[in-house]
Amino acid sequence: MTYSAPVLDMLFVLRAVIGDDALKSLKRDDLAELLEPVLQEAGNLAEGVLAPLNHSGDKETAKWNDGDVKTAKGWKEAYAAYRQGGWNGVPFSTDFGGQGLPWVLAFPVQEMWQAANMAFGLCPLLNQGAVEAIYHHGTDEQKQTYLPKLVSGEWTGTMNLTEPQAGSDLAAITAKAERAGSGYKVFGQKIFITYGEHDLADNIIHLVLARLPDAPAGVKGISLFIVPKFLADGSRNDVKCVSVEHKLGIHASPTCTMQFGDKGGATAFLVGKEHEGIKYMFTMMNNARLSVGLQGVAIAERATQKAMAYAADRVQGGKPIIEHADVKRMLLTMQAYTQAGRMLAYEAAFAMDSGDKPKVELLTPIVKAWCTDRSVDVASLGVQIHGGMGFIEETGAAQYYRDARILPIYEGTNGIQAADLVHRKILKDGGAAMKNWMDGQKELLHELDTSHGGDMSMISETVHEAFDSLKGATGSILAMGKNEDLESVSAVSHAYISLAGNVMAGMALAKAALRARNMLRDGNTTDFSPEFLKKKIMLARFFGDHILPHTSGLARTVRVGGASVLQGSL
Amino acid sequence: MTYSAPVLDMLFVLRAVIGDDALKSLKRDDLAELLEPVLQEAGNLAEGVLAPLNHSGDKETAKWNDGDVKTAKGWKEAYAAYRQGGWNGVPFSTDFGGQGLPWVLAFPVQEMWQAANMAFGLCPLLNQGAVEAIYHHGTDEQKQTYLPKLVSGEWTGTMNLTEPQAGSDLAAITAKAERAGSGYKVFGQKIFITYGEHDLADNIIHLVLARLPDAPAGVKGISLFIVPKFLADGSRNDVKCVSVEHKLGIHASPTCTMQFGDKGGATAFLVGKEHEGIKYMFTMMNNARLSVGLQGVAIAERATQKAMAYAADRVQGGKPIIEHADVKRMLLTMQAYTQAGRMLAYEAAFAMDSGDKPKVELLTPIVKAWCTDRSVDVASLGVQIHGGMGFIEETGAAQYYRDARILPIYEGTNGIQAADLVHRKILKDGGAAMKNWMDGQKELLHELDTSHGGDMSMISETVHEAFDSLKGATGSILAMGKNEDLESVSAVSHAYISLAGNVMAGMALAKAALRARNMLRDGNTTDFSPEFLKKKIMLARFFGDHILPHTSGLARTVRVGGASVLQGSL
Repeated sequence: MTYSAPVLDMLFVLRAVIGDDALKSLKRDDLAELLEPVLQEAGNLAEGVLAPLNHSGDKETAKWNDGDVKTAKGWKEAYAAYRQGGWNGVPFSTDFGGQGLPWVLAFPVQEMWQAANMAFGLCPLLNQGAVEAIYHHGTDEQKQTYLPKLVSGEWTGTMNLTEPQAGSDLAAITAKAERAGSGYKVFGQKIFITYGEHDLADNIIHLVLARLPDAPAGVKGISLFIVPKFLADGSRNDVKCVSVEHKLGIHASPTCTMQFGDKGGATAFLVGKEHEGIKYMFTMMNNARLSVGLQGVAIAERATQKAMAYAADRVQGGKPIIEHADVKRMLLTMQAYTQAGRMLAYEAAFAMDSGDKPKVELLTPIVKAWCTDRSVDVASLGVQIHGGMGFIEETGAAQYYRDARILPIYEGTNGIQAADLVHRKILKDGGAAMKNWMDGQKELLHELDTSHGGDMSMISETVHEAFDSLKGATGSILAMGKNEDLESVSAVSHAYISLAGNVMAGMALAKAALRARNMLRDGNTTDFSPEFLKKKIMLARFFGDHILPHTSGLARTVRVGGASVLQGSL
Repeated sequence: MTYSAPVLDMLFVLRAVIGDDALKSLKRDDLAELLEPVLQEAGNLAEGVLAPLNHSGDKETAKWNDGDVKTAKGWKEAYAAYRQGGWNGVPFSTDFGGQGLPWVLAFPVQEMWQAANMAFGLCPLLNQGAVEAIYHHGTDEQKQTYLPKLVSGEWTGTMNLTEPQAGSDLAAITAKAERAGSGYKVFGQKIFITYGEHDLADNIIHLVLARLPDAPAGVKGISLFIVPKFLADGSRNDVKCVSVEHKLGIHASPTCTMQFGDKGGATAFLVGKEHEGIKYMFTMMNNARLSVGLQGVAIAERATQKAMAYAADRVQGGKPIIEHADVKRMLLTMQAYTQAGRMLAYEAAFAMDSGDKPKVELLTPIVKAWCTDRSVDVASLGVQIHGGMGFIEETGAAQYYRDARILPIYEGTNGIQAADLVHRKILKDGGAAMKNWMDGQKELLHELDTSHGGDMSMISETVHEAFDSLKGATGSILAMGKNEDLESVSAVSHAYISLAGNVMAGMALAKAALRARNMLRDGNTTDFSPEFLKKKIMLARFFGDHILPHTSGLARTVRVGGASVLQGSL
C-alpha cells in the first residue's frame, strides 16, 4: 500500500510538455528552480506521512459522537505536519501568508495529497474553495479575519450547498437567512458537508448558501454567508453536526449533516451582496471541479502503482502476470488514462496561471468528467489485475474502487459537466472557445504530420482522425443548437464530452510523444532517460490504437443519437 | 430495496425471441404451460423471501467463529423455504429427485435468486457445479450417496480449486492426495471457497482438486476428490474452515479458507480416474461460467430497477430526473445491457438444452465476460443516477456496485474468458463455430433488410455494420493465427470479446425488435401490450445508435492493436 510520488512524470509534464518556455511566460523567476525541490518535499510528506494512513483511516473511519467528530488515528498528527510544512498555503496569496505559487505547481503538489490519501486531501480541497470565495468576494475585514488562518490551515473551510431536496438543483435551496441587527442569522439543514465537523483545526469556517425572506425565487435569490463554528469572542455558534454518513468510500473523510440555527439562529456574515451568492459559489465550485478532476488523476495513479507492483510480483503460468499480454494491455490503459488526465489537469492549471479564462472554462467540465470517469475505470482495472485478491479489502485495491466512485458525482455530477460543456461552453459562444482550442493544436498536428518513423506515423494517423471526429461532432452540436433542438444536444452530451476528453487526452499523449522523440533525436537525455522517453512514445501509440478508435463511434452517436434517447420510453 | 421479478420480460425472451416453436423442439410437452406459473412462483419467493435479506445480509455479513460460520439473520429460514419449494432441483435429473426442467427455464429462475440476493444465490450456484460433476463423472454409488441430498438441497456442494499461488493457473496446484487403503486422503489449503462452511445445510460436500504423489506435473496430474464435511458414519471429516475473507461485496456469502488433513488426512473419494480431475472440473466450471454471466444479468436488472424507481421519484429542476435527457440515456443504457445480456444467457441455455455443444462453447466466454463487464457498468450507472445518495450505503445502490465487481473475476477472470474465446474457440476450429453462428444470423439480417419504417431501418443499418465489423475482426484473428502471432491475438483478445459481445447483444435486441414489430403488425398484442412491444423496438434503436458505433473502433483495435501492447513497455 505504498505510494511513490511520480516526481519524474510530473516534471516531464511541466518541463517538456507544457514546456520550460511556457513556464517562463508566467514571469516568476524562481519557478524553474522551485519545481523539483517543491515536488520532492511534497512527495516526502505524501509518501511518509499521508499514504500510510490511507488504509487504516478507511478501516477506522471518522466517528461521530454527540456533535463532535473524531478523525482516525494519526490524522491529527498528519494534519499538523502538513500545516507546519506550509503546504496549505501553496497556491494562496502571499498577502495572507500563502506561498503564492502558480497553479501549475500547486496542482502536482495537490495531486500527491489526493493520491496518498484522498480522504485526507479533501479537507484542504474544500478549504481552498472557502479561501477563494473570501479572497475574491469578501470585505477587507473578512479577509483579515479569516484568510490568514484558513491559508495557514489553523482553521479549515467548508462549502454548504446541498440540501435533501436540492442536489444538482441549487434553485431549490430552502435554508433561511434573516437580517439581524447589522448582521444575519442562518437557519436550516445542509447535507453531504465534507469535513463539516472534525478535530483537526481550532475553528471551522462554513460558507453557507441560504435565502433571505424577500429573496426572488430560484438561484437569483440565494445569498452566501460565512458561518464560523466559533465566533470572534470564542463562543460556540449555533451550528451543529447532527450525523455523519456511512459511505461507500472515503470513509475517513467525515460527510456531515449540519444543522444551523436550532438555538435561535447561527450568526452569519454576508459575503458580497445579498442574492448574489450563487455567483460567488461558482467561484469556489469551478476551482473545486478542476481539483476533483485532479483527484481522479491522483487515485488513478495510486491504483496503477499498486496494480503494477502486484503484476510484477504475481507469477502465473511460469511468468509474472505483467508479461501476460492482456494484463499488460490493462496496465497500459491505466497508465495512459492517468498520464493523459494529468496533462489535461495541469494544462488547465497553466491556463489559470496565464489568465486564459475561456480555455479554463472550456477545460473545466472536460477535466472534471473525463478524469473522474477514467479514474473509476482505472480503479476497476486495478481490482481486476489483482484477481480474487482484488476483492479482498485487506489488499487495498478495492478501496480505490470505492473511493473513486464519488468523483463522478460530487462538485456537479458528470452529467452536469456534460450539460455545462455542450450548452454553456459550446453553444453559448457558437463554438468559439473550442475552435480556439483546436486552432491551438494546429502546430502540434503539423509537427505530427512531418514526423517520420513507424510509431510517430501511427500516432499521427490516429490523432488526426480523432481530431476530425471532434471537429465533426462539434459541428453536429452547433447544428442542433441552430435548430434549437436543445434536448437532442442534452441527449448526446455524454457522448460529446467523452469524445472531447478522449481527443484531448490523445493529443496530450501525442504531444508528450513528440517532445520525447525530439529529446531522443537531439540526445537531450540528461533529465529524462532514453528508456523513459521511449515509453512516452509507445504510450501515445497504445492510446491511438486502443482508445482513439472509439472517437468515430462517439461522433456518430453525437450526430444521430439524440432521437433514440428522446423518443425512447423507459 | 424491493425487487420485482421481471416475469413479462423473461416470457418475452422465451416465447417471442427464442420463440414458442423453438421451445417445442425440446420435446417437453408441458413446457409451454409451465413457463408462466414457474416464473410467477419463483418470483414470489425471490421478491418475498430472498430480496428483503439482501441489504441486511450485506450489513451483518457471514460470521466465522472457531471453524463454524454463522449466516446472517433470516438466512436459514430463507434457505429452508427455498429448499422446501423444490427450487434447488429445478434443472437436475428426475432420477435423483430433481425437476428435470430445461436450462432455458432454469436460467430465468436462477436469475431471480441472483437478482434478489446474489450472496444467497451463490450457494445453489456452487452446488449446481458439484451436482454436475458427480452426475457426469461419479460412480453409481457416489451418485446414490450424494445426488439425492445435493439435489434436494439438504446438503450443499462446493468447488475447491484455488490455492494462494494458484489462481488462474491450476497447473500450480499443490494440495496433496495420498492413496489410503481402498480410498484416499487429502491434505492442503484451499482459498476463496464460496460457502465452504455455513449453517444452512446438514452436510457440505467439497469437490477438491489435489495431486497424487506419482502424478505428472502440470494440469494433467490433478485429480478430483469428493471430501464430505461429515462422513457416512456421522463423524466429522478432517476439514476445517480456518477463516473467512473480509470482502468488497457479497458480504453475506462466506468466502472460506479451507484446511484439509491437519489431523491425519481428510477422507476423500476419487471422482472418475486419477489425474483426470481437471477435465471433470471444467464440466463444473463451464456450467458455472454461464451462471456467473447470468449473475451479471441479474444484478444489472436489480440495479436498473432501483435506478428507475429513484429517477421517477427524484425531482430536480421542476421535473423527475427520469425526464432529464442524460439520465434517460443512462437508464436506456442500463436496460439495453440488461435485456441484451438476458437474451444471450438464455440463448446459451437453450443451446445447452438443444445439445448444440459448439454453440454453447462459443457463447460461454462471451456470456461470462460481456454480461459481467456490463453488470459493473450498469451498477456504476446505478450509483451515478442516485447522485450523492448513491454513495451512501443505506441507499443500497452501492451494494450492487460492490457485489457486481466479483463477477468479472471469479470462475475464470474475463481475461481468461477472452483468451479462451480467441485461442480455443476461434483459432482452434479455424473460426468454424463463429462462422456457424454468423450463418445462423443470415435470416435475421435478411428480415432486417426488408423491414420498412424509420426505426427498423436505422436498426438494420447499425446492426449490419456491426456484423461486418465482427466478420472483419474474426478474419483479423484468423490471419494472426495463421502467422502464428499468438501473442498479438492475446493482446487484442479483450477488444475482440468486447466486440463479439456488443454485436451479439445488438443482434439479440434487433431480433427482439423484429419480433415486436411483427406482433404489432399482426395485432398480436394479447400477451404483450403495444406499449411494451414499442419499447423493445426503441431499445434496439438506442443500442444501435449509442453502443454499436463502437464496434468499428474495436475491430480496428483487433486489426492493429497487438503491436502497441507487445512493443510497449511499462
